[in-house]
Amino acid sequence: MATIKDVASDAGVAVGTVSKVLNGQYVSAENKRKVEESVRRLGYQMNYYARGLKTRYTYTIAVIVPDILNPFFACLVYHIEKELYKLGYKMFLCQSQMEPEKEAYYLRLVSQNKVDGIMGITFNENDAYFTGDIPAVIFDRHFRGPVCCISSDNFRGGELAAERLLAGGSRKLLYIRTGSSLSSETLKRGQGFASKCQERHASYEMLDLGDDADFYPEQGILEALKSRMEGGVPSFDGIYTSTDGLALEVIKQLDHLQIQVPRDVQVIGHDGLRRMNRGDYLVSSIAQPVEDMARAGVECLLRQIRKEETEDITILPVTFVEGGTTRIT
Amino acid sequence: MATIKDVASDAGVAVGTVSKVLNGQYVSAENKRKVEESVRRLGYQMNYYARGLKTRYTYTIAVIVPDILNPFFACLVYHIEKELYKLGYKMFLCQSQMEPEKEAYYLRLVSQNKVDGIMGITFNENDAYFTGDIPAVIFDRHFRGPVCCISSDNFRGGELAAERLLAGGSRKLLYIRTGSSLSSETLKRGQGFASKCQERHASYEMLDLGDDADFYPEQGILEALKSRMEGGVPSFDGIYTSTDGLALEVIKQLDHLQIQVPRDVQVIGHDGLRRMNRGDYLVSSIAQPVEDMARAGVECLLRQIRKEETEDITILPVTFVEGGTTRIT
Repeated sequence: MATIKDVASDAGVAVGTVSKVLNGQYVSAENKRKVEESVRRLGYQMNYYARGLKTRYTYTIAVIVPDILNPFFACLVYHIEKELYKLGYKMFLCQSQMEPEKEAYYLRLVSQNKVDGIMGITFNENDAYFTGDIPAVIFDRHFRGPVCCISSDNFRGGELAAERLLAGGSRKLLYIRTGSSLSSETLKRGQGFASKCQERHASYEMLDLGDDADFYPEQGILEALKSRMEGGVPSFDGIYTSTDGLALEVIKQLDHLQIQVPRDVQVIGHDGLRRMNRGDYLVSSIAQPVEDMARAGVECLLRQIRKEETEDITILPVTFVEGGTTRIT
Repeated sequence: MATIKDVASDAGVAVGTVSKVLNGQYVSAENKRKVEESVRRLGYQMNYYARGLKTRYTYTIAVIVPDILNPFFACLVYHIEKELYKLGYKMFLCQSQMEPEKEAYYLRLVSQNKVDGIMGITFNENDAYFTGDIPAVIFDRHFRGPVCCISSDNFRGGELAAERLLAGGSRKLLYIRTGSSLSSETLKRGQGFASKCQERHASYEMLDLGDDADFYPEQGILEALKSRMEGGVPSFDGIYTSTDGLALEVIKQLDHLQIQVPRDVQVIGHDGLRRMNRGDYLVSSIAQPVEDMARAGVECLLRQIRKEETEDITILPVTFVEGGTTRIT
């Protein structure tokens, strides 16, 4: 098995340089690249337990998401794992499934030095775990303490959706959301939407179906839509939903009601999900820059681990994507 | 922090019983349940490095899949993580992205005692890593040595698809596959399909688009379909594809060619994927029992870790699911 000396020799640098790279300390970009290539090529691995006892770094990050059945979370984890691997980190995957207990189990791993940091999406009231000196990055939500928040520009996303619906000829707009109200950042989707409608003096309604409607919300959506129809004619002609999953459910129910999308009603979702995560967009949507968010999150976490300064919150730009459920303008 | 004595006291069992449970040794089901509940309730955690040095068990499993953007792999990982967590194991997620080097990196973790075992889906020629005494479970593929293979009944899946296409009135059947030919088990999908067609004296054709067509295969599929049409009429009226993802691509191209599904051509995919992984089936399909496969895989791996006997291969049953791309029979 390769030793640190083999790596230094292969890379043509000093052993101390290799050591610095492995411990995340500063070396020139060129030397860093050489060392990383040699580490990869020789399959060099430090002795884990020995290293664990000595440096207390595990080169392991725990990533928490509700579950990876949700394609948005799967995309986020996909990019995080790729990014972490590039930097020599392994990744524990924890699917919290909204169980505070399971989240707490993984959060404790940090304080027990079993992982160097934690990142992900949490909807539980685990604020208590984030008050100490734990390197942590949370997407779309603020915590007290030194936790970084990475988000995309949800407010602008809501504005964009309203702009696009209006540009496509819709005049009676409807916003529908489901899910936890804990995620402070994502609530801005509706706020941006309402703000733009007001600015444009457009008629709009805000509908919050709450937590319960998060999975299989068919009945709730159907009733909400039906109650907004008279004589087969809906009181709305443009819908923005808080997620693409919800947009798909809404379109399914509109189809039941024989309302055609986008002819009768335009629909815009949020997230920018693609068919099989690689193909066409599922619906017209506000796309989040998932890869950039993953990269920013990993970078922010590693800065915390190295005790460097970090921003409290990083907001990345969103874009409108055409997915066949809006009229071409 | 809770000690092993606290757990024993909380569970009302002897310390030795707790120790046995934590080390995967046999205790009664009742005591196992009690201990596991107390471990969970008290948030008990063994000292990691100390335990690592002493017992050489890490209670960590590495799970390898090409990537979790593919919804089938995401579903498999989803169920594996849930199952491992129930049994007190943490999970490293490795997305190999078909890179042998990245797979090899994770495979080495086992021999270095950084994980207790490895499971997943591999398409690389890493046979060399599987010849030793490494607890390993691979889905859909055989290896030399003590590696368990978990699969679903691919041959029967192919038969079922042919039966359903014939029952729905199709008479000129076409099988289309893409992807690596390394996965010995999944090749049986086509074999079962051909076998059933022969048994029923049905006309059929086998089309292998190979590895290159695995992602974004639009052009290849369109040309393959076009070359099988004369005067706007296709030479086929029933298609079975090796995956649901491929079925979606095929349907998209049929749509371009103004061939209606299922009126003109029935289509059956394979995997049983659902919209957003929770809703309706994306296409009519041969559904794999993903949750059962995950559970069987975890069980098989833990038996290997405990040095118990295991089956070389476990084959689980598949079912036909209706997804709107076949005619109701």
